[in-house]
Amino acid sequence: MDESRRKVIATLGGGAAAVGLLGTAAVRTVVAEDKPTVTTPKKEVLDEKGQVVHQPLPYVPLDPKAVAERAYHNYYKGDCMYGAFTSIVEGLAEKVGEPYTSFPTTVTRYGAGGVLGWATLCGALNGAAMAVYLVSKEPMPAIDEIYNYAQAVPLPEYVPEKAKFKITPSVSHSTLCHVSVSKWCDASGKKAFSPERADRCAQLVASVAKKTVEVLNAQAQGSFKAAFPLPDEVKACRACHDQKSTLENTRGKMECAPCHEGHPKS
Amino acid sequence: MDESRRKVIATLGGGAAAVGLLGTAAVRTVVAEDKPTVTTPKKEVLDEKGQVVHQPLPYVPLDPKAVAERAYHNYYKGDCMYGAFTSIVEGLAEKVGEPYTSFPTTVTRYGAGGVLGWATLCGALNGAAMAVYLVSKEPMPAIDEIYNYAQAVPLPEYVPEKAKFKITPSVSHSTLCHVSVSKWCDASGKKAFSPERADRCAQLVASVAKKTVEVLNAQAQGSFKAAFPLPDEVKACRACHDQKSTLENTRGKMECAPCHEGHPKS
Repeated sequence: MDESRRKVIATLGGGAAAVGLLGTAAVRTVVAEDKPTVTTPKKEVLDEKGQVVHQPLPYVPLDPKAVAERAYHNYYKGDCMYGAFTSIVEGLAEKVGEPYTSFPTTVTRYGAGGVLGWATLCGALNGAAMAVYLVSKEPMPAIDEIYNYAQAVPLPEYVPEKAKFKITPSVSHSTLCHVSVSKWCDASGKKAFSPERADRCAQLVASVAKKTVEVLNAQAQGSFKAAFPLPDEVKACRACHDQKSTLENTRGKMECAPCHEGHPKS
Repeated sequence: MDESRRKVIATLGGGAAAVGLLGTAAVRTVVAEDKPTVTTPKKEVLDEKGQVVHQPLPYVPLDPKAVAERAYHNYYKGDCMYGAFTSIVEGLAEKVGEPYTSFPTTVTRYGAGGVLGWATLCGALNGAAMAVYLVSKEPMPAIDEIYNYAQAVPLPEYVPEKAKFKITPSVSHSTLCHVSVSKWCDASGKKAFSPERADRCAQLVASVAKKTVEVLNAQAQGSFKAAFPLPDEVKACRACHDQKSTLENTRGKMECAPCHEGHPKS
């Protein structure tokens, strides 16, 4: 272990004796002058290789429809990533209490419009992944299922009880905000900054939050089975380009064809 | 205000009397049976339109190089998003204390490899944006500067003191993980899952964390000025396709040409 690594671990109060970040059983109390008493969870546990050990928070099954309704309304409070993430955390706060009750959810507003309008990763998917990682013992298959679903299914598919608009669904074939928005503009004939587009994203957030809860519930109940495996087309691309392939010159699970159409030449 | 909106606000304990989430001055203590005493910040303040008000946490200038060094080592503990985000939060925890000391940073591991290997948004950029939003009074110009920098500059540009490998820098022209990795594989001749590629990403995380701290410091000191404005090519595309344009059929600030080369036909 080098000196800097040792220092990092010491700073974090880590090592074999440490307990999990946000672990529900062990907290320590810090009292500082002129500051309120704050009860803080201890920091990360590191494994033998020095990597942070994944320690999900307790999860109890939630009502997918109730979370979807909450997500729809939370979109209008804090945009897409906030809508997806906060709705699940709030659902758990009602059933479990701490540490969900005080979880700092507002920071997830940064993911709005694929990160404050950059239109990179869809905020609903960014928020869903963060929520999954927070609570799932096996986050990768859960995220794979949600992302493959979001690329393949006409969205939105969940219609909130008091939806502002009737929305034309569209298939994005992408996890990216700007691709998803463009596809929907084509399908609906509406503009990218119209109130209908905002409501389309609110309903998409509701749909993704509902799917996320369904996946988390299935994992918690031991009944999870992927309904949306990696598409064969993506597997074919990965066979030449991804890990342990001949070229091994990229990585990822996004649909390839929408941006790399015509390759390989048939 | 409709019934559901009223209900959401009531659930959150919001309204005019509420104070900010994670506000440093006001916290309430919840005591539940069989649970530790947990001191929780109150929930969001909503504005007149029902939207969550942005309330950044206190920021004090950090040493960009010290954060970069920490980010390099944190990459090896928790991957790219964790590396970028946690290093800034830990720097602030040392100088400010709470609420940074107990901030639940480990959840940001979900952003690894563009969200658990999906290779969507670069994890360093996902983590940087989250850190910016947490502390900046004006997060959008800060994120714009960091993202435009990350697309335009050969990265990594910061070499950690005890770097494992000498890394060939490359320009990504993208905010996406898989594009950035592919460009680097081309430039370096190395494979996408080689130890050199991992170290390249660790050094890229260090570079992005350093840039992020420089931007946050400049904002805090009132001297911020964008060195990497939106490229003219992107402005030209937005003039036909983005908000208030003729077509208005997409959105975003990513470089367009790498995926939309040859359009419009010249």
